[in-house]
Amino acid sequence: MKKITLLMMLFLSHFVLLAQQHNFNLMPVPRNIVQADAKFRLTGKFTVQVNGIKDDTILYRAVNRAYQALNRKTGLAFGQKYITPADTLTNAQLQVAEQFSAQPAIGTDESYQLKVGENTVALNAKNTIGILRGLQTLIQLVSADEKGYYLPVVAINDAPRFKWRGLMIDAARHFISFEEIKHNLDAMAAVKLNVLHWHLTDDEGFRVESKVYPLLHEKGSNGEYYTQQQIREIVAYARDRGIIVVPEFDMPGHSQSWFAGYPELASLPGPYHPGPRSQWQQEHPDPNAPRATSIADIIANMIAPTFDPINEKVYTFLDKFIAEMTKLFPAGYMHIGADENNGMAWKKNPAIVAWMKDHQIANTDELQRYYVERVYAILKKHDRQLIGWEEIFNEKLPKDAIVHKWIPESNGMIRSYGKIADFTTHGNQVLLSVGFYTDVFLPAYIHYQNPVFQGLNDVQVLGGEAAQWTELADNENIDGRIWPRAAAIAERLWSPESVNDADDMYRRIFALNQQLDEQGLPHLANYNRGLRRLSNGAPIDHIKVLTDVLTPVKGYKKLMGNMMKSPQNSFQTTPLTAVSDIIPVDSETKRKFRALVKLYLEKHDKDSEAAIRAYLFSWKQNDALLAPQFTGNKRLSEIQDHSRNLAAAAAIGLELLDKNDQGVTDVTWVQQKTTQLDSYAKPHYETEIAVIPEIAELLIGHLVAEPESYPAF
Amino acid sequence: MKKITLLMMLFLSHFVLLAQQHNFNLMPVPRNIVQADAKFRLTGKFTVQVNGIKDDTILYRAVNRAYQALNRKTGLAFGQKYITPADTLTNAQLQVAEQFSAQPAIGTDESYQLKVGENTVALNAKNTIGILRGLQTLIQLVSADEKGYYLPVVAINDAPRFKWRGLMIDAARHFISFEEIKHNLDAMAAVKLNVLHWHLTDDEGFRVESKVYPLLHEKGSNGEYYTQQQIREIVAYARDRGIIVVPEFDMPGHSQSWFAGYPELASLPGPYHPGPRSQWQQEHPDPNAPRATSIADIIANMIAPTFDPINEKVYTFLDKFIAEMTKLFPAGYMHIGADENNGMAWKKNPAIVAWMKDHQIANTDELQRYYVERVYAILKKHDRQLIGWEEIFNEKLPKDAIVHKWIPESNGMIRSYGKIADFTTHGNQVLLSVGFYTDVFLPAYIHYQNPVFQGLNDVQVLGGEAAQWTELADNENIDGRIWPRAAAIAERLWSPESVNDADDMYRRIFALNQQLDEQGLPHLANYNRGLRRLSNGAPIDHIKVLTDVLTPVKGYKKLMGNMMKSPQNSFQTTPLTAVSDIIPVDSETKRKFRALVKLYLEKHDKDSEAAIRAYLFSWKQNDALLAPQFTGNKRLSEIQDHSRNLAAAAAIGLELLDKNDQGVTDVTWVQQKTTQLDSYAKPHYETEIAVIPEIAELLIGHLVAEPESYPAF
Repeated sequence: MKKITLLMMLFLSHFVLLAQQHNFNLMPVPRNIVQADAKFRLTGKFTVQVNGIKDDTILYRAVNRAYQALNRKTGLAFGQKYITPADTLTNAQLQVAEQFSAQPAIGTDESYQLKVGENTVALNAKNTIGILRGLQTLIQLVSADEKGYYLPVVAINDAPRFKWRGLMIDAARHFISFEEIKHNLDAMAAVKLNVLHWHLTDDEGFRVESKVYPLLHEKGSNGEYYTQQQIREIVAYARDRGIIVVPEFDMPGHSQSWFAGYPELASLPGPYHPGPRSQWQQEHPDPNAPRATSIADIIANMIAPTFDPINEKVYTFLDKFIAEMTKLFPAGYMHIGADENNGMAWKKNPAIVAWMKDHQIANTDELQRYYVERVYAILKKHDRQLIGWEEIFNEKLPKDAIVHKWIPESNGMIRSYGKIADFTTHGNQVLLSVGFYTDVFLPAYIHYQNPVFQGLNDVQVLGGEAAQWTELADNENIDGRIWPRAAAIAERLWSPESVNDADDMYRRIFALNQQLDEQGLPHLANYNRGLRRLSNGAPIDHIKVLTDVLTPVKGYKKLMGNMMKSPQNSFQTTPLTAVSDIIPVDSETKRKFRALVKLYLEKHDKDSEAAIRAYLFSWKQNDALLAPQFTGNKRLSEIQDHSRNLAAAAAIGLELLDKNDQGVTDVTWVQQKTTQLDSYAKPHYETEIAVIPEIAELLIGHLVAEPESYPAF
Repeated sequence: MKKITLLMMLFLSHFVLLAQQHNFNLMPVPRNIVQADAKFRLTGKFTVQVNGIKDDTILYRAVNRAYQALNRKTGLAFGQKYITPADTLTNAQLQVAEQFSAQPAIGTDESYQLKVGENTVALNAKNTIGILRGLQTLIQLVSADEKGYYLPVVAINDAPRFKWRGLMIDAARHFISFEEIKHNLDAMAAVKLNVLHWHLTDDEGFRVESKVYPLLHEKGSNGEYYTQQQIREIVAYARDRGIIVVPEFDMPGHSQSWFAGYPELASLPGPYHPGPRSQWQQEHPDPNAPRATSIADIIANMIAPTFDPINEKVYTFLDKFIAEMTKLFPAGYMHIGADENNGMAWKKNPAIVAWMKDHQIANTDELQRYYVERVYAILKKHDRQLIGWEEIFNEKLPKDAIVHKWIPESNGMIRSYGKIADFTTHGNQVLLSVGFYTDVFLPAYIHYQNPVFQGLNDVQVLGGEAAQWTELADNENIDGRIWPRAAAIAERLWSPESVNDADDMYRRIFALNQQLDEQGLPHLANYNRGLRRLSNGAPIDHIKVLTDVLTPVKGYKKLMGNMMKSPQNSFQTTPLTAVSDIIPVDSETKRKFRALVKLYLEKHDKDSEAAIRAYLFSWKQNDALLAPQFTGNKRLSEIQDHSRNLAAAAAIGLELLDKNDQGVTDVTWVQQKTTQLDSYAKPHYETEIAVIPEIAELLIGHLVAEPESYPAF
């Protein structure tokens, strides 16, 4: 112990406290970091010694993965082929030590200490999971200068703000492949997320193999499901990365795919087959039904396939099914969904109505409560803690059920089932996905500044989850939908609340983007591939100048547009290969341009003006360069209006800078041009130009705060 | 029948015979194609009716895959969700019909007829496999004009030249992941290859799970192997694409990894562990051994781990092992390697030497023959046809063994075991991989014009295989090593011999490159990702201008350089992330530039001159644009010499064009500049500039035929 204290003192003596002023690309930002002005040089002689529990295979595999990641990144051809418990490299440059071995679990100690000296690096943690988190920090510390790769000399003490930091992936609406789930687990590990919430069943698909009830996946998936072997591999792959897997089997609504094989479980007669929830109603039209006049109307009156709560066979079935699933998913939680059941499918069944009367059940909300209670008992029997979306909440909800809040208080269409305090006061643990829906095309800063998390601590809530629903995401674009924005959410859940500078977040999130790309996440690769597909083989350079500043329309606009056009199967047969499907949600170029505009408006300096002019010039000239490609490419020509408008907007920006230089800017001109800019902000084919606000801000001479929220529709 | 005849006549009446003069991007070129000047328009109403054998799941899955590929490509949102045997869309635009269902097998009828009319498309074949081949042709026919996507009106009659068209992937030296094998099967299907030859075991790794002898994969793979479940999935995935899987278990040499778990099978004492074949010798140094003075010397004298041929337990072991493997690999072939056994490991064992004397076995070649005969008998028992590399050949080889020729006659280092005629005269079937090694960085035209295939027909040889060894390939770069060049080999094996225009092949192979990219092959994505990794986050545009005209050094130079540096484990610990690892072997830019230079030298026209100038100008100015990126990026600076030299070479080209325009070119200047260009052709860090020959040809005023071969070292 003495030796360590001495070392620490020596170590700290030439350190300076940095708070959050460092320039590192760490994401999430660690709790505590001190830095010295020195570097640890990475060379081919970089070696590792692990002093861990000998049979801690998670630990050794993780260290080997990190070592290989550094080897690939630096190209230094490190000499150690495999790092094993038998190694005795007492002089190794990196010393890794744990006290206990651990499996990932909610509440496990995830803290670690990482000390980079000029000649040695030490990573210490109480247990395996802490080491895993620290290895990710180590990887993110790698930097380069003219001499090669190095680690900055730092001392980091880190631990998470919240215990539960999740990502929900909907594998039902579009099936998300085994490989893609693994890609996402790699990315989750990079930003220290620890829960994969796997939405495995919904109206559109039943995505897990059941040997007890094989018609579930055989009839409910159109052949697209995970085998039990694959599930086991995913669970093991997640475990290796310090992540638990929580399955969701959504019920009593969102359950049409179950009924394809077992229609007797439903509250209305079949036949059923997997598809959008509106399908049953469309196939069983009621000529007397009132015509829906709004989306709210549709939601309130849709007769969506729902389990029959008064059929005892349902509970016998679920008992056996859940028994089977608990063998696949060892984590102690099961999510039962329970969202968006408007009760219509129950009201349409006279037997259910009669049963409710007999049992003095006043309304379908109470009937849903009854259903959830029955399922709760089954889960209890199988030693699983129930999680449900906030619709499970009522004053009789058992206190060990976890309430997963998703409905914003401000939402005008769907009623909220309670505030956080309502749930916690009642004694329930709370998970939050409000403000964390990555499928609605909102910029990362919106999730980052999620007001719901202000002032919260890990006693009040367990944590939260990013949620990616997949009406508009499939294997080829889901990575770009989730990442890098989920990293802003990961930081909100891991880092101290004081870490909240959106500009700095954007700087780091795009560095992370690069890291995820290098590690194999195909989000950038797929964006480029999508452009190559659209270009029909022509070079994509000029297309990319334009698409790099486009962004998909925010909220549910694209989805609702599709639904209104062809409610039957629009999102299942429409290929997700249009510009709006493939471009990133957050334009990196916009963020860089915005930073320059901010600087210029503050300082009016020549450097930022020159950089702004370079952007504007490239946009201005790009339309002419791109014009030949629009001819003969009908699909690409969907963004021709944007191309013209971007050029025109850039020309306005350049004219403004000229006028500024000449000191001849006049108010009328600014007003006129601002109106013009407004018209360029208009969406075309579900995309819009992301940099119009910044060009307008150049004109009006000051930055405008970005919106704190966007309308859903 | 009458109706069809009438339709055919109508159909053919407005057709013109095209021979090979068409401009399509078909690869391989079909046997027979006639074209009309008309188009079939693809719209959202594109529907398919399959008249096939109802339970032909291979057929229906293939049609659905093709339908989805067209849907993604065109973005048209086709209305059919799934195509099933129950469909009765008699008016569907695409009519697919087969007479029989079939599984892939060598010698199966693979012919098909594809007729695209203005309003309907008909794909007919005797069996499933023909339909699979025809669907690939259909996908490649998709073209675009200003009105959208269309198929040209054509009538195609197609069938392959050879029965066996394979790709060998070495999964031993670097483990190639399950996902990557699937990617390659997709690409193979696109160019109508029908055999995956899977090199599953070698000194460096035992890559298949054995339940009978679990120490094989447990001790022999460092954890990187295919589970039996994965093998089954790959075999099924291949079957779905009309491809058989032939495993290779290399023996009696190339077998160190077997001995890690079962050292008693080896002819010399262990311990053994998976690694390069030189490993055992290095770990058991003989102080009296003469010092090797050349690579040939090393090859001749290396004591490489080898099965013990006089140990009966070896054959009992192999009998049980092969019995297990035949259950995994249903195709009727098994490759036993049998290459590169120099007999040294046998000569070093006195018991083997004594046994040879007792049994009147004159030399280790005869002992190898004995070994192969024993293994042949085991395979016979398990109903498998033996394939071996040409070293299995001798006058007593059973006539139903297949000889796989790989050694070029011209090779000065390794003796050839016979000419094709020697093998066929003896009665053996022959496979050819001579000239088809994709791991030696040769341009596609070399493989395409493989002289070994001149005048051959499918009676003389079964066919051939591209072969990708993986000392210098791993999961991230193997696709770019195999593709698109393997497509030139696929065309050589499928198309009539008369299809041999290298320029047209290059035009089509780069179109195919795009198709493979769109379908998910990560070769282009990984090239770009590799550049992003090297750039440390900076834009890669300028880097790519340079690397797009770089090519890895040809032959075994890079490998041998590595081996000489660090024979122990160089190719297993050196990360494959350098420029030489990530750039394509064939520079598309070089091919485009070469086509322009050819045109210019023939016509001296302004258009090609302008295009040449544009290339030269971009190369000339690129060095200055790239210079800031070299500073502070040590790894990238490995190509700084090339950047300077490319700029200088381009400047010479531009000067030449100016002189041409002014009519002032003089011989001395040309000589001087040609010498200068020679110096720019020099390799740096295992890469060289690919366009120096074309710039030199501009100077000397005529094209120079490209080399017909390159030295191996």
